Amino acid sequence: MFTNKFIRGLNIINEITVTDNKEIGTHMDIVAAFKDLAPDLESFIVEFAFGDIYSREGLTKQQQTMATIASLVTLGTEPQLELHINVGITIGLTPKEIVGTIVHLIPYVGFPKVLNALKIVKKAFAQRNVTIKDLQMQSN
Amino acid sequence: MFTNKFIRGLNIINEITVTDNKEIGTHMDIVAAFKDLAPDLESFIVEFAFGDIYSREGLTKQQQTMATIASLVTLGTEPQLELHINVGITIGLTPKEIVGTIVHLIPYVGFPKVLNALKIVKKAFAQRNVTIKDLQMQSN
Amino acid sequence: MFTNKFIRGLNIINEITVTDNKEIGTHMDIVAAFKDLAPDLESFIVEFAFGDIYSREGLTKQQQTMATIASLVTLGTEPQLELHINVGITIGLTPKEIVGTIVHLIPYVGFPKVLNALKIVKKAFAQRNVTIKDLQMQSN
Amino acid sequence: MFTNKFIRGLNIINEITVTDNKEIGTHMDIVAAFKDLAPDLESFIVEFAFGDIYSREGLTKQQQTMATIASLVTLGTEPQLELHINVGITIGLTPKEIVGTIVHLIPYVGFPKVLNALKIVKKAFAQRNVTIKDLQMQSN
Amino acid sequence: MFTNKFIRGLNIINEITVTDNKEIGTHMDIVAAFKDLAPDLESFIVEFAFGDIYSREGLTKQQQTMATIASLVTLGTEPQLELHINVGITIGLTPKEIVGTIVHLIPYVGFPKVLNALKIVKKAFAQRNVTIKDLQMQSN
Amino acid sequence: MFTNKFIRGLNIINEITVTDNKEIGTHMDIVAAFKDLAPDLESFIVEFAFGDIYSREGLTKQQQTMATIASLVTLGTEPQLELHINVGITIGLTPKEIVGTIVHLIPYVGFPKVLNALKIVKKAFAQRNVTIKDLQMQSN
Repeated sequence: MFTNKFIRGLNIINEITVTDNKEIGTHMDIVAAFKDLAPDLESFIVEFAFGDIYSREGLTKQQQTMATIASLVTLGTEPQLELHINVGITIGLTPKEIVGTIVHLIPYVGFPKVLNALKIVKKAFAQRNVTIKDLQMQSN
Repeated sequence: MFTNKFIRGLNIINEITVTDNKEIGTHMDIVAAFKDLAPDLESFIVEFAFGDIYSREGLTKQQQTMATIASLVTLGTEPQLELHINVGITIGLTPKEIVGTIVHLIPYVGFPKVLNALKIVKKAFAQRNVTIKDLQMQSN
Repeated sequence: MFTNKFIRGLNIINEITVTDNKEIGTHMDIVAAFKDLAPDLESFIVEFAFGDIYSREGLTKQQQTMATIASLVTLGTEPQLELHINVGITIGLTPKEIVGTIVHLIPYVGFPKVLNALKIVKKAFAQRNVTIKDLQMQSN
Repeated sequence: MFTNKFIRGLNIINEITVTDNKEIGTHMDIVAAFKDLAPDLESFIVEFAFGDIYSREGLTKQQQTMATIASLVTLGTEPQLELHINVGITIGLTPKEIVGTIVHLIPYVGFPKVLNALKIVKKAFAQRNVTIKDLQMQSN
Repeated sequence: MFTNKFIRGLNIINEITVTDNKEIGTHMDIVAAFKDLAPDLESFIVEFAFGDIYSREGLTKQQQTMATIASLVTLGTEPQLELHINVGITIGLTPKEIVGTIVHLIPYVGFPKVLNALKIVKKAFAQRNVTIKDLQMQSN
Repeated sequence: MFTNKFIRGLNIINEITVTDNKEIGTHMDIVAAFKDLAPDLESFIVEFAFGDIYSREGLTKQQQTMATIASLVTLGTEPQLELHINVGITIGLTPKEIVGTIVHLIPYVGFPKVLNALKIVKKAFAQRNVTIKDLQMQSN
């Protein structure tokens, strides 16, 4: 009933977005929210974004998420940035790498977009119980 | 005469942007081009962008460059994207990682910005003699 | 006292933005809100935006609104998007055409801007009592 | 060998982008140009952008192209705007509708993006032998 | 302990952002808010943004703030726009100059970004007790 | 035959854009270039942009041009930026003020847009015979 691509995409979504904290949305909550408006969004997100794009070989999940976060900081679309900072925590980017990716963009996008992104990092770190101690740990 | 920060920044610029191909500009060529208009750009680029930002601990040079490329694809500023794709080649991002970072952004920024970026990748790969064979090699 | 262009513009505003729901703003509420700050905004919006631009021949009101919505989704300016989705409902774009215009832009602007726009569609459809049944009706 | 979605997408591409003028690129030229860098772009463009998105019901080809043009004017990505203005001519948007869609966006995106888009319209109309007479004809 | 550049930057921040109204943030509140996440933001903002950029000769504080406001309206980053409209009031841009700078941008960025900016002007003027009478006074 | 607003707008265009150098376009060249595509652009530019917006009281021509340049650097629309840097030279912004306005935006928009803008400044200064000596002169 489900295509292989759908199952592959759904597995990635489950792997990278599901957390113990029920307040934190996953990509499947988005799909559910728009089921009436556009039922085919489910296929576009699960099959294309995850079954195709996230399934490409060549980048690790950590690298994919770092590129995603850098792009979303630049776009300034905050709900998606919040979601993918949470993904970063889930798939094992260190807090230092998440903050470092964002601060690194000051010369490219300027302070306003970086500061607005760091506000979202603070919120996500609080929700996920990331502490200053975690932040100070070396990434490797 | 030079501050420590300036020397630190200049060392990073030399490490990541200098190539055998004289046609490919470095950040110091930019500084030289605008010496008359704004002589303090040299300090802003060397001391701030490289001496401060690129000198932060927490991300490897490869990670910094991946985040930079993702941001520049999203901004659509092509001369800087060309420069940092070249940096990526110089500091050891694999061709697969460079292309992979850009293609990964299709769901976030759409096809137009990604296709325009891939045109620049083709140009940079040709200048640096990156071949299809290089591209097919696994990243690690 | 009023120019012909002003009257022409005001007629279009009344035709396309006035609804039974008092909570939904019209362009004249915007004009009123900024009367102290910039009284000439009234002329710029009524005479130029509506008396000139919306009065051009060549596009139907439905086509004008579809182009407007596509542009506002791409810009990401949400209050204006909400206003023009309401205009769309008022001037007879079907719910399917409104959602279809926005979903069609995924390949051009990516998912984040489309998903943020669909959130606003949900809000506007609820305010205007647009139902799933309405959404499933064919446009022609 | 080809999926139904691929064939459906390819049919749409052939229908909307192929012209007598060999100088005018089609989406398949883009796919060919990046075959070495990212062979899966073919599937993303043919299957997702056309097999999925352009195959949705609810908008006519004319409406889809009008929304696409409005979005690309707003983004400012010129090669794609040129391609889709050509699509507009091919699928039967009148010259007046193409120009009208772009001029209509002045109040939303300002003059610079609209003027840069009209420069591309002039080029495309010349390539396709669209004349002033064509432009003056009523759309219906 | 503090560099000359830091002291120079801090003096400018104190001069242009501190007001009697405790609800209105200054750049040092931003620094404090992110002290845990990125302690070096303090140096980037105080030393680079203010010690370097705002310390350049050639523009008055009024000119610097007018350019800043015009850029932030165009970017659409609202928290920073609110901060710098407050800076404008503090360093002596007249209310007419602040509103005038923003309204002047309609032909370049369109109505949506200008209207969203004027909403923030209304809020800032109310917080700072700027009245219509102030607005009507000539700038010189 | 011409409205007062048209004459007022045309006078401003003549005052701020006409130079001895025939290679440098004016706003009336733009109007002429698009006369066939959209004859009403003449009224939108002359009457609205100049007869309305540039005719507002509250900002000097120098302030209007500084705000315009800051916005166009942020948008990244290069042909319009070139035109308005030329306007700046014509209406008496000093070279130092023009460069200063652009460099001041580094913290807000990042280096890429500022460097791309400075390239255009170099071109415009060369066309208008602005020299380093001019640049070093104090603005007041």
